[in-house]
Parts: sequence; C-alpha cells; structure tokens
Amino acid sequence: MSKVRVSSFSISIDGFGAGARQDLQNPLGVRGPEMFSWFFQTDVWKKMQGESGGGQGVDNQMAERAFENVGAWILGRNMFGPVRGPWPDESWKGWWGDEPPYHVPVFVLTHHVRKPLAMQGGTTFHFVTDGAESALKRAREAAAGKDVRIGGGVSTIRQYLLAGQIDEMHLAMSPVLMGEGEHLFAGINLQQLGFRVAQSVAGENATHILIEKRQ
Amino acid sequence: MSKVRVSSFSISIDGFGAGARQDLQNPLGVRGPEMFSWFFQTDVWKKMQGESGGGQGVDNQMAERAFENVGAWILGRNMFGPVRGPWPDESWKGWWGDEPPYHVPVFVLTHHVRKPLAMQGGTTFHFVTDGAESALKRAREAAAGKDVRIGGGVSTIRQYLLAGQIDEMHLAMSPVLMGEGEHLFAGINLQQLGFRVAQSVAGENATHILIEKRQ
Repeated sequence: MSKVRVSSFSISIDGFGAGARQDLQNPLGVRGPEMFSWFFQTDVWKKMQGESGGGQGVDNQMAERAFENVGAWILGRNMFGPVRGPWPDESWKGWWGDEPPYHVPVFVLTHHVRKPLAMQGGTTFHFVTDGAESALKRAREAAAGKDVRIGGGVSTIRQYLLAGQIDEMHLAMSPVLMGEGEHLFAGINLQQLGFRVAQSVAGENATHILIEKRQ
Repeated sequence: MSKVRVSSFSISIDGFGAGARQDLQNPLGVRGPEMFSWFFQTDVWKKMQGESGGGQGVDNQMAERAFENVGAWILGRNMFGPVRGPWPDESWKGWWGDEPPYHVPVFVLTHHVRKPLAMQGGTTFHFVTDGAESALKRAREAAAGKDVRIGGGVSTIRQYLLAGQIDEMHLAMSPVLMGEGEHLFAGINLQQLGFRVAQSVAGENATHILIEKRQ
C-alpha cells in the first residue's frame, strides 16, 4: 500500500533536524552538514556526485532504501532554496544542479505562484500554493500507488506529523550535538500520535531508527 | 583526575529521561521502565537482584563501567523516593531495600532536614539542605579523588549541566518513544556548554553515547 514516509532524515543526538540560520551559504543551517556526515560517506551520495568508492555498509543500504519505491516528494520551500517572499524570477532551480536526485514529481510548498519546472532526469518541481493538504493530495495522485516521501525540512515534517498524515519515519541519528537549530519533535507527542519504534539499526556513522504507526 | 559524571543514564529517542506522573507505583514515571529495558537484561542488573544469567555484551560492559571508580553519588530527592515535603518519619529508606547498589556515600538533595542514614553494604544517605553546590562540594570530599556520579533524576542533571559542573555524560538511548515526561535537554544548548560527542557505541538493546567537554 502506498505510504507517506520520511526517510533518511538526519537528526542530532539532541533532536535537531537542521542547524540555525539557514541561508545560501548554509542550506542545512550552521553546522547542519555535520548531521549528514554519515550520508556523505555512502556510495549513494558519491554516485550522485559522479564519484565512486563510497561506503557499501549499513548506512549505504539505508540510504538506498530511502529512494526505493518513491513516486513523489514533498519539500518545504526552504528545502528547495534560500529565496524568501515572491519569486523574483525563475533563475533559482534548487540546490541540486541540472539533474536533481529525485527523478519523479516534487511538490514544493510555497505561498507564491510559480509555474512547474521540468529538470533533467525526470524531476519536475510543482509549486503548491494552496496548502500542505493539497500538496499531499497531488503527490499521492502523482505517485500512482508508490510512496510519497516528505523530504523536509523540519517544519514541513512537523506539519504533516501533527496532521496525522505520516505513516513511517526513518531517522538517521548522528553522533553530534547541535545545541540550537530546528528541533524535530519539541512539543510533539509521538506516542500519542500512535507511533512506536519498530527497529533501531547501528550503521557505521549513524544509528537508524525506524518509527511506524502502531497497528 | 576526579570527574563529575552522569553514567548509564537512559533516555528515549525523543529525549525524555523519565516518564510522566512519577509516584510510588511508578518510580520512573509512567512507561519509564521501558527506557531501562536494556539495563534490566544485563548481568550487572541481574546480580543486583541476586540472580544470574544476564547479558554479558556491550550493554553490560557499559553498565559495569558506570559503577567503576565512583566515590560518591548525588541524587535528587525524587530519585530517592516519592515522599514530598517534610519527612513524616524515617521509614522511607529509598527504593533499593536494605543494601542499596551504591556502596559509597550518597548525597540526596532535599529542602527538609534529616539525619544521615547508614545502610548495609557501605551506602550512607546524607540529606543536603543547602543546595546543589554544597552537595557537590561534600560529594567531592567524600569521593576522595574518585569520581562523583550524578545519578539523576532529570531535573538534578539539568541543574548541574546548567551550572557547568558536569564533565562527561554517558547516555543510553533506548529505542522507545515516550511522548511525554521529563525532557533531559529541552532548552539546554549542550554545544554552547562545551560538550561534544566523543563516541557512539551500539549495544544489544541501547545506543551508548559518550558526551564530554571539549578540550
């Protein structure tokens, strides 16, 4: 059955999912990349960069699984880019170059209208201005029976969590302390929302925690 | 050198160190014991219960290390017992029976005077009414060069963290979601306090995270 899921989402020991003060120089927030250290060492990541020789272990398997059976993505606007307010023009095309790693329709939450943007490799960015519910509806349709992956960032995941619309989450807990930034769970009672930890798997550079809805 | 440390302190994936609504029936708060599941399976714990056959792996090694070189403990009053307000009498002697697992002086933070309580096996509970700073001073003296272990609970650890008096912490992160209870780090910036993650070690039933002050 089609699921709405969060996959390979990196958090710190102290529960942050992004660093503070995100901007063009710090797309993951200040010190954010430290949380992604595990991912940057995987073969999945190296191949995205046109390189080889990345890790082939547990972390890499988890990164691979995160991309499997995904029919559509949803991203918050900050994850798409640093532009705020109305789009000044159409020059910003995401952080990922000409061929983004999605290869399926990607729905970007924004308050500002912009026409769809087709990239190389099958990724098309659709800009959704009528809310998270609408984005999910469109993503489900586009996914055509495959899963919808909520890519992030933190506030987007929190929004779908609180709406009860996420079926499972795979978090990659990195051995770093952020101290400040965007906290993934603060004020959210995951137990009350029906989640439980299904599995905890030690990777080479992160601990992978699989969280799912209780049956 | 003598350290002030937190050891084998269990937390949930969502950062809680105790469940909600602690009372006589729930000394660790509601669902609190789920966070200690890893510990209850160790040989260290089984031996405390006069049993044998507990796990001998990584979790057990971590539990053993937590008791090594400890010369004195500090406990918050709620960790000592469920009694609130002035001591009605001297009948409450802790959760641990006639021979508590400490075997050294234990300093209990309280607002209410009570004379020292000597138990079997070398544990003496001292009730400290003039604050956390004083308790630490007395514990350091009693430890005579060994470490002072801050046993908990959450609010006691937070107090010493914020005062900059903790040198290292070993947290055992259990694969459970509490959803509510006492959060260990909410509002505390560990990075700013000078901590970093020194090591993350996968145990059989918990992930052990060693946090220390940066040099």
